[in-house]
Amino acid sequence: MTVDAHPIADLPNPADYGFTVIERQELPADLLTLVDRVRELVDAVAHTEADPAELAAASRTVSELTERLGARRRPVGAMTRQDWEGGRVDYNTLANAVSGVTNPVAPLRNLRVEDGGLRAETTLNGAYEGPPGLVHGGWVAALLDQVLGETSAVFGRMGLTANLTVDYRRPTPLNTPLTVVSRITGVERRKVFVSGEIRCAGEITAEGSAIMVRVAIPEV
Amino acid sequence: MTVDAHPIADLPNPADYGFTVIERQELPADLLTLVDRVRELVDAVAHTEADPAELAAASRTVSELTERLGARRRPVGAMTRQDWEGGRVDYNTLANAVSGVTNPVAPLRNLRVEDGGLRAETTLNGAYEGPPGLVHGGWVAALLDQVLGETSAVFGRMGLTANLTVDYRRPTPLNTPLTVVSRITGVERRKVFVSGEIRCAGEITAEGSAIMVRVAIPEV
Repeated sequence: MTVDAHPIADLPNPADYGFTVIERQELPADLLTLVDRVRELVDAVAHTEADPAELAAASRTVSELTERLGARRRPVGAMTRQDWEGGRVDYNTLANAVSGVTNPVAPLRNLRVEDGGLRAETTLNGAYEGPPGLVHGGWVAALLDQVLGETSAVFGRMGLTANLTVDYRRPTPLNTPLTVVSRITGVERRKVFVSGEIRCAGEITAEGSAIMVRVAIPEV
Repeated sequence: MTVDAHPIADLPNPADYGFTVIERQELPADLLTLVDRVRELVDAVAHTEADPAELAAASRTVSELTERLGARRRPVGAMTRQDWEGGRVDYNTLANAVSGVTNPVAPLRNLRVEDGGLRAETTLNGAYEGPPGLVHGGWVAALLDQVLGETSAVFGRMGLTANLTVDYRRPTPLNTPLTVVSRITGVERRKVFVSGEIRCAGEITAEGSAIMVRVAIPEV
């Protein structure tokens, strides 16, 4: 199987389609700090046993914050550029639910090229729970979907997921370092075949495979 | 195909296994309000263009909130009981990432029995974004995983997902009402086969099928 890496010139620039593209270095460090703090808040709220008066006061504070922070809002689909090893380029929405740098709930931050594929580590807190103490099966699928999709974009073609299949081999624990890896396994016309897995302490907890289909970027 | 509904007595009560079980009416209304407010905050932060001073002040406020709310934390795996139509019973962690009543990021709140299966509506805000303006493929999978799993628990057997397959038929938009439905399609020894779909404006955007395998509840 041969995978043709796409030349940079072949990658559509979202700015040409009317999307806002923001360089990572333009994002204030204070924003990235706030994103991390809100991730911790989500977990705290999901598990809090604070008394009603404390909860009501917190709601008021959060409403005020939302109003202030929401007063200036990025346009829908604002993207940032990711430069990968080997001159590859990729774009992702800043708010991407799984790897967006400004999304407080996105748990994937350190995706990188390794061994001809992509690799990332993450640790999911209690906000990602499904069964007691375990990562939700939907989040297992979401981690795989994002990494498989980015692998397709970086090594094959930008595309949307057409099919995602996940085999759950053993429970994936919360609050424990996880590794996600993926690689291209085939290319056929507009389809890119990608597979990957999640590992915990060296053991595979879930395997995923996806068919990504190259699509035109929609006009805004 | 015949599906045997499990009698209530057949359903293990998590309290018998050492898990904390909290009745929904014991949850303070102020907590549920705070959960909704934090969901809005996540979206606001993911898209804010506030200036650094405002962001830094917000981080301090959020840190204080997290510290206060986190001072009293529920035990891992705290669950709540769900009474379904027809005398069926189900348990879910309060913090469940997709349908937990205390999880600010969980977008499914109104699952119910309908037409021999389960049905829910939801609208996903900008914090669930994948491609510009569209629901992340991982969240499409997560919605299906949760509803398929609960369908198995309510109509078949409580279990964990062994396999999840999602076919993405068309883009699923953000900020637009979505319907998720699912039903059991077969039972074979410890396996329950379930399928379902997500609809938007009457059209199927994604179809999912899962194999759920009945498992013993782990001891705490």
